[in-house]
Amino acid sequence: MDPDLSRLDETLATLDVDGYLIDADSTDADQYYLSGFDAPDPFLTLYDGSVRLLFVRSLEFGRAKRESRAETVERFTDYGYDDYLEDHDRTEAAHRSRAAFLDAYGIDSVAVPSRFPLSTADGLRDQGIEVVVDDGEAVTDIRARKTDEEIEHVRAAQRANEAAMAAAEDLLDRAEIDGDRLFVDGETLTSERVKEEIEVTLLRHGCALDETIVACGADAADPHDRGSGPLEPGEPIIVDIFPQDKATKYHGDMTRTFCVGEPDDRVREWYDLTERAYRAALAAVEPGVTGSDVHDAACDVYEDAGEPTLRSEPSTETGFIHSTGHGVGLDVHELPSVAPGGSELEPGHVITIEPGLYDPEIGGVRIEDLVVVTEDGYENLTDYSVSLRIE
Amino acid sequence: MDPDLSRLDETLATLDVDGYLIDADSTDADQYYLSGFDAPDPFLTLYDGSVRLLFVRSLEFGRAKRESRAETVERFTDYGYDDYLEDHDRTEAAHRSRAAFLDAYGIDSVAVPSRFPLSTADGLRDQGIEVVVDDGEAVTDIRARKTDEEIEHVRAAQRANEAAMAAAEDLLDRAEIDGDRLFVDGETLTSERVKEEIEVTLLRHGCALDETIVACGADAADPHDRGSGPLEPGEPIIVDIFPQDKATKYHGDMTRTFCVGEPDDRVREWYDLTERAYRAALAAVEPGVTGSDVHDAACDVYEDAGEPTLRSEPSTETGFIHSTGHGVGLDVHELPSVAPGGSELEPGHVITIEPGLYDPEIGGVRIEDLVVVTEDGYENLTDYSVSLRIE
Repeated sequence: MDPDLSRLDETLATLDVDGYLIDADSTDADQYYLSGFDAPDPFLTLYDGSVRLLFVRSLEFGRAKRESRAETVERFTDYGYDDYLEDHDRTEAAHRSRAAFLDAYGIDSVAVPSRFPLSTADGLRDQGIEVVVDDGEAVTDIRARKTDEEIEHVRAAQRANEAAMAAAEDLLDRAEIDGDRLFVDGETLTSERVKEEIEVTLLRHGCALDETIVACGADAADPHDRGSGPLEPGEPIIVDIFPQDKATKYHGDMTRTFCVGEPDDRVREWYDLTERAYRAALAAVEPGVTGSDVHDAACDVYEDAGEPTLRSEPSTETGFIHSTGHGVGLDVHELPSVAPGGSELEPGHVITIEPGLYDPEIGGVRIEDLVVVTEDGYENLTDYSVSLRIE
Repeated sequence: MDPDLSRLDETLATLDVDGYLIDADSTDADQYYLSGFDAPDPFLTLYDGSVRLLFVRSLEFGRAKRESRAETVERFTDYGYDDYLEDHDRTEAAHRSRAAFLDAYGIDSVAVPSRFPLSTADGLRDQGIEVVVDDGEAVTDIRARKTDEEIEHVRAAQRANEAAMAAAEDLLDRAEIDGDRLFVDGETLTSERVKEEIEVTLLRHGCALDETIVACGADAADPHDRGSGPLEPGEPIIVDIFPQDKATKYHGDMTRTFCVGEPDDRVREWYDLTERAYRAALAAVEPGVTGSDVHDAACDVYEDAGEPTLRSEPSTETGFIHSTGHGVGLDVHELPSVAPGGSELEPGHVITIEPGLYDPEIGGVRIEDLVVVTEDGYENLTDYSVSLRIE
């Protein structure tokens, strides 16, 4: 996959700098994307029209030459590190090696991501290099528009996700109700047990698990709570799965809400309303509309039904208390934002649509699909039915 | 677990600053340790004698008040964010809210970790706050000395690790040799198959998997190669497992090298030598010796036998080409360093001892245990036999 870096050239021109610099390990998605290299320790990637890597040590050197997309791969030792160590500590020697590396390519000024490490920036500035924060996060912005190959990677992760969701639903389907508990094979069914089923299924499909949400009752009322303990009959159970394909590093993302046994009328109402908000938001997705417009479409449905949203009541702690969605790719949360202030959608944007309602008194309900914006609308990358009741 | 932050007070005094500041999400171990809070998005933690958190949004607010160790938990909106937005963009409004927060606690100067985000630092400096990089990484340094509770967390992760290693060894034990391949249940035994077995076992024991190494032949000769494809009879197979307990976030770490079928003499020799290096390094571990001394003990064994090390031949690409070990805790690689320049070992340091030999012509051999430094030596946290041959 060769990314289109022309927007990075534009950023260099706009910010009037010689190069773009990243100092991070490859868990930083911008670093992985720009370098094309997977390494557990931080390294330096310079973009000056070409991609150039600089490593601290020799350990990754050979592999980087074989696997990265870089035109040049070098080491601190190639830029005087051992000599600098005679008069300076390791930190200062590293600063000087980095500056010598930039100097060798005629780089006097660089743009960097907002989370670029301060120590490296201060060290380069001390050596006379101008370091400017790129508030526009050019590489993150480029990553938002996926190539066909990247879309296939997301699609594959979402296939694994569907298998994991089916495994979770099967387990809930097998549950028997006894009082205020659910039982499977004679054991109390817990959030942890369902998560284990999900995670083992993901593993069998080549995906790593970050965390998984299986949350019931008051847990489900907090959108960031992962859930724990026994699941209860008649309560909505939020299952939110966001696997990462281990080979490609791209993510899937999907949420369903299930109920084992009879939900009360309020939960039914919330589910129907959330399904309407989800369909309204989906219907709004096309190139040229903004993420903010799509968010508004979900808010309209909730507010028309009298439910609070952060748009109508900025300080509300119940109702629709998060954004409608976010981009998904190498990061599970990335651009574009499908939220207030969200910018214009473009073909190749991969986004979630995930409205929900929350109240500690009732629990939580959320429905989430993953879609890709196309030339004339969107394609839903998710193939999983939308239904609350588990019979 | 309440960490002993007295060394952080010393750092503030030494650097002559009012507070220590971290801006990171909780995948940053220093942030998780200092804040006692697990959150997927970046937040600000100030230490000024007390721990104080500042969040961008309200989403984590309630949970942070319940779960974190902070004395105060606040939000951007508590520090004029909405007003700043009238005249400034979000980035600048955030800078001003952060500065107002620091001002409210009388903080004019802060020390920060070396990888503190540049944008936040520049923003605070523009608001008149002095921002100094703490090259000593005070929080990382404090984390190196584990409390009894932390040691129990590491021990629990290592128990899961032993179960996973046993599952891998069982699978290798069941393998049948046919030509240059291994077969289990009629299928070619691959690195991927063994990793899946390891990872599923870890999951069943409540551990998340980062990556796992199951590397054979030339793959095993690169210490960072995770391995792939068919495993071969007579070749050393490096199995390196470093699970993270999902509940506590602490890691285990262990490596064994196995051979299915007859290894050649060179591999036997390497294994015996590596076992001697491992025992020599272990024997050197006690409070007061340095990580560098322990590393030397392993190098001595190899060099005496005529094998190159990075100590004897700094540019060698074969032989003992990495450090003897590293600290393990919330990060799988943390302080103290058991390597050239490694500082003095102290009771409560949890470290790996993992010498190995590598050559693309032969493959790789590594043996790794995890130990805790005690008042008078060390306790081995690893209970797994050391043996090459699988009969």
